[in-house]
Amino acid sequence: MRIALDAMGGDYAPGPIVQGAVEAVRSMNGSTEVILVGDRAKIESALGECGADGRGLEIFHCSQTVGMDESPVEALRRKRDNSISRCWELMATARADALVSAGSTGAVVAAGLFQKRFLRGVRRPGIAVVLPTANGPCVMLDVGANMAAKPEHLFQYGVMGSLYAKHILKIENPAVALLNVGTEEQKGNELAKETHTLFDDSHLKDRFIGNIEGRDIYKGNAHVIVCDGFVGNVVLKVCEGLVELVLNTSAEELLGRLPKDHHDTARRAFEALMQRYDYSEYGGAPLLGIDGICIICHGASGAPAIRNAIKVAGTFAQHQINELIVNELDSRA
Amino acid sequence: MRIALDAMGGDYAPGPIVQGAVEAVRSMNGSTEVILVGDRAKIESALGECGADGRGLEIFHCSQTVGMDESPVEALRRKRDNSISRCWELMATARADALVSAGSTGAVVAAGLFQKRFLRGVRRPGIAVVLPTANGPCVMLDVGANMAAKPEHLFQYGVMGSLYAKHILKIENPAVALLNVGTEEQKGNELAKETHTLFDDSHLKDRFIGNIEGRDIYKGNAHVIVCDGFVGNVVLKVCEGLVELVLNTSAEELLGRLPKDHHDTARRAFEALMQRYDYSEYGGAPLLGIDGICIICHGASGAPAIRNAIKVAGTFAQHQINELIVNELDSRA
Repeated sequence: MRIALDAMGGDYAPGPIVQGAVEAVRSMNGSTEVILVGDRAKIESALGECGADGRGLEIFHCSQTVGMDESPVEALRRKRDNSISRCWELMATARADALVSAGSTGAVVAAGLFQKRFLRGVRRPGIAVVLPTANGPCVMLDVGANMAAKPEHLFQYGVMGSLYAKHILKIENPAVALLNVGTEEQKGNELAKETHTLFDDSHLKDRFIGNIEGRDIYKGNAHVIVCDGFVGNVVLKVCEGLVELVLNTSAEELLGRLPKDHHDTARRAFEALMQRYDYSEYGGAPLLGIDGICIICHGASGAPAIRNAIKVAGTFAQHQINELIVNELDSRA
Repeated sequence: MRIALDAMGGDYAPGPIVQGAVEAVRSMNGSTEVILVGDRAKIESALGECGADGRGLEIFHCSQTVGMDESPVEALRRKRDNSISRCWELMATARADALVSAGSTGAVVAAGLFQKRFLRGVRRPGIAVVLPTANGPCVMLDVGANMAAKPEHLFQYGVMGSLYAKHILKIENPAVALLNVGTEEQKGNELAKETHTLFDDSHLKDRFIGNIEGRDIYKGNAHVIVCDGFVGNVVLKVCEGLVELVLNTSAEELLGRLPKDHHDTARRAFEALMQRYDYSEYGGAPLLGIDGICIICHGASGAPAIRNAIKVAGTFAQHQINELIVNELDSRA
């Protein structure tokens, strides 16, 4: 399998991005080749720094990079030779089976939408993220691809999320829920109410457990949580900020009360916890619903996150998630 | 000042609700009277249990209660003699200056909207909640009153939130931010984009710091955070669930690593932390924009939360927040 990796995307690119690719290729014993897309000189220098022999790696040079703070649509138009668009082109022309990027999420999604490479039957792609809960992992989508979601989009997120939960997370009969402001059926805004009705009238109705509130996400009763991209994105980032604050203040509170000889133990515990809740460690979120495989990584991704994302792309291909999505949407159309 | 308290609202009503009223009246030395609204027999029994002498307290009997899981609008129509509607009526007829309820938030808001007791110039009321940040408290609104927010509503939340932050939280020049999926101006859905423009063109433009992402809420750079009621409600409840999960797993992780003789110390630290992040402790969220004072408490409120909510109602009246809101909206109309 061949993966186009946006070597220029991410807060610390290209160093840890290239490093992650080198580690992934090494650990996958020839089954995976990575095309490092970006500035050749910078990539070669990064390769040199991690002492890579170049096996399983190829460089695809391009001259431009979309900055994390640029307007995605504008930047993509102005910088035709940017690494994100080049990754999509490599996939569109079948020179790559998948793409991985830790660059601007907005730009990765927009570049994909420009190409209209949606899977047959899919109305709008959505970004799926795996969250830890008290009861194992769950998948939430959309977390930022679609800012104008319609009920039909959310319903399709339920279909795609279910297949992802079943085949990647290995949950036999995933329970699907709608993120809402209350559990009763008639709760929420118009989008939520109409989506609820769509699920109730669909082939997913037996798996649809109805609305869940924000506080229930982490209980883990739902394996697939659907929401519009605005809400999902805000929620995901709120979690990131809150975990950091709670763990930092917990550490402070604890260290203030414990005798000094236990401080190291406590610090190690909090480091382990921070890692457990750091979703950038999970190796990227797939953009579901596109004809191809696109894994979006957190901007702060280090080498382990990139290595994991490359592995996730492989697993995704291996389970033929896209074929399953097309078949399920097709049989219900 | 006279406060109508929904004695039947809340997961554990009327016991802790009545207890909270008794404590509030005692601590406020005759400045506050509480009208306990609800089933007379149950209230009298609860009063007996906390050995209250009845000073500063009055019972207003009504025969019905809106359940936490009932459809608010339907329940209010069917149960005309419910405690929430009676509280609003006491305020509408000037027999009470404020109302406090830990009952169904949807029902409290809907009962208020039925009466159309909006402050002059206010388009839609919003629920404001005070959140702890790494940098002191901030106020976020709306967290659930308005499921069909328009840009103008969010802008008014900025005006009302600023006055609340300044006069109640004592923040001299509160910074106002819009909760969004990215910091750049053109980010987000249509509502967010149009709201951003409204702020930029308004008298608040110097105080408006633009968009903030979910992860920035807890950094505390923004003192007033505006969002639509759907997003705000989901975010608030996500925080509640996540804090619980993180603190529970932290406690587990720590206790697993520390020797047994330090377990009590660690447990006390986590109890203190749980309390710090438990927003039900803060004593209720005001419904801003109504002609009167309405403080909404968490369903799980105990006596301390109710006591605090009664105090918040007093502070709100004392600072004449409503007069300030009307004046600011008026002078800019």
